[in-house]
Amino acid sequence: MYSVVVEHIYLLVIVTLISVLQNAFFALKVEKEGNSKNIPTSVFERVRCANRNCMDAYPTFLAVMWCAGLCLNQAPAAFAGIIYLVVRQKYFVGYMGQTSQSTPGYMFGKRVLFFLFSMCIVGIFNYLLVHYYGSDYKEYVETITGAASALLLIP
Amino acid sequence: MYSVVVEHIYLLVIVTLISVLQNAFFALKVEKEGNSKNIPTSVFERVRCANRNCMDAYPTFLAVMWCAGLCLNQAPAAFAGIIYLVVRQKYFVGYMGQTSQSTPGYMFGKRVLFFLFSMCIVGIFNYLLVHYYGSDYKEYVETITGAASALLLIP
Amino acid sequence: MYSVVVEHIYLLVIVTLISVLQNAFFALKVEKEGNSKNIPTSVFERVRCANRNCMDAYPTFLAVMWCAGLCLNQAPAAFAGIIYLVVRQKYFVGYMGQTSQSTPGYMFGKRVLFFLFSMCIVGIFNYLLVHYYGSDYKEYVETITGAASALLLIP
Repeated sequence: MYSVVVEHIYLLVIVTLISVLQNAFFALKVEKEGNSKNIPTSVFERVRCANRNCMDAYPTFLAVMWCAGLCLNQAPAAFAGIIYLVVRQKYFVGYMGQTSQSTPGYMFGKRVLFFLFSMCIVGIFNYLLVHYYGSDYKEYVETITGAASALLLIP
Repeated sequence: MYSVVVEHIYLLVIVTLISVLQNAFFALKVEKEGNSKNIPTSVFERVRCANRNCMDAYPTFLAVMWCAGLCLNQAPAAFAGIIYLVVRQKYFVGYMGQTSQSTPGYMFGKRVLFFLFSMCIVGIFNYLLVHYYGSDYKEYVETITGAASALLLIP
Repeated sequence: MYSVVVEHIYLLVIVTLISVLQNAFFALKVEKEGNSKNIPTSVFERVRCANRNCMDAYPTFLAVMWCAGLCLNQAPAAFAGIIYLVVRQKYFVGYMGQTSQSTPGYMFGKRVLFFLFSMCIVGIFNYLLVHYYGSDYKEYVETITGAASALLLIP
């Protein structure tokens, strides 16, 4: 039973593990800044704030990615998850930048989350269609989703 | 294999998606208040604090709802999840109210979380009974749970 | 279908429920300190900060524990989860201690999280081996993991 389950989620697990590594990197940054005595407080505040914003959005991201992966297909969901992690890394680094007036906003990765959100809706819609009408569009939908996920690379 | 899984979780996925939408609404509120220059700081602080409190409780809520839905039955769990989201919306709006002395406390939705928590315990207990004694009370339990979830509507 | 699923996750669900209870305990502490008027602000700040740090790490912990439990075996994952909760309780209590210079750092439970992380990687690696080569090391791995989880008890 296990290998059946793992077969359908292992890409999601890998992306989750990478995100955990990134969380650990962020937390180490915060701990390092908090321990060093001779840095200005504003830097610590900024790192802490960037970490907070990332952590605030983390459960939302995990929930949407896993729902999208379970409802439709894991490959595009994991790909979008990787993109999200790259965006988050950029956000975190950008937040720590020297020019304090150019701090990015509170939210980031809206497009990726929106894509994953649409994947969930399409997956549920497809399930309901199959359940009540018996026609299965899943293969077409998966092909389209796989193609659409490449669009996320466009900056 | 997918449609079997999706059949048992699609209501939970829908509630999760609604909660994600609500999170996005909260985050947009925070971003809007943070960007506007001519508002007093206290309003921004209040919105930020309300958002923090909601985000603090969010992983707990997700974990309990999914466990309850997986262990027992998805319909009452999803219904309780909807109630929780309504309570959270009220909490957020009430936190932003003008009268600062009437700010609600740190916790909210205790009753809903307690209900979901009981569902998990009943589900596990039922599984252990079935596993060791072979009698299956699941149908009775599900009927009772479905009826009990209506009690959450009583204010 | 349900009892098959519940059979493989019920220990994880139990640990999740215990962690939810602990979250509620932390939140009650914060609410109690926030409501009482005659305590110094520093105590409230410290409780709030301890709660924040715990909540920041909570989704990461949940994700890693569930991935480890799903990919490899639930028993060692649940055992490591229990250890993590004990460490977290110690951290929270230690954070509220009187001697403010001995506040623990931002991170805690690194060893447990690292163990769960390794479990995930071993599980996925094992799945890929089985998938491409057809040999199944899962039983050996599970035995070794069960033995290794006892090492977490060494302080």
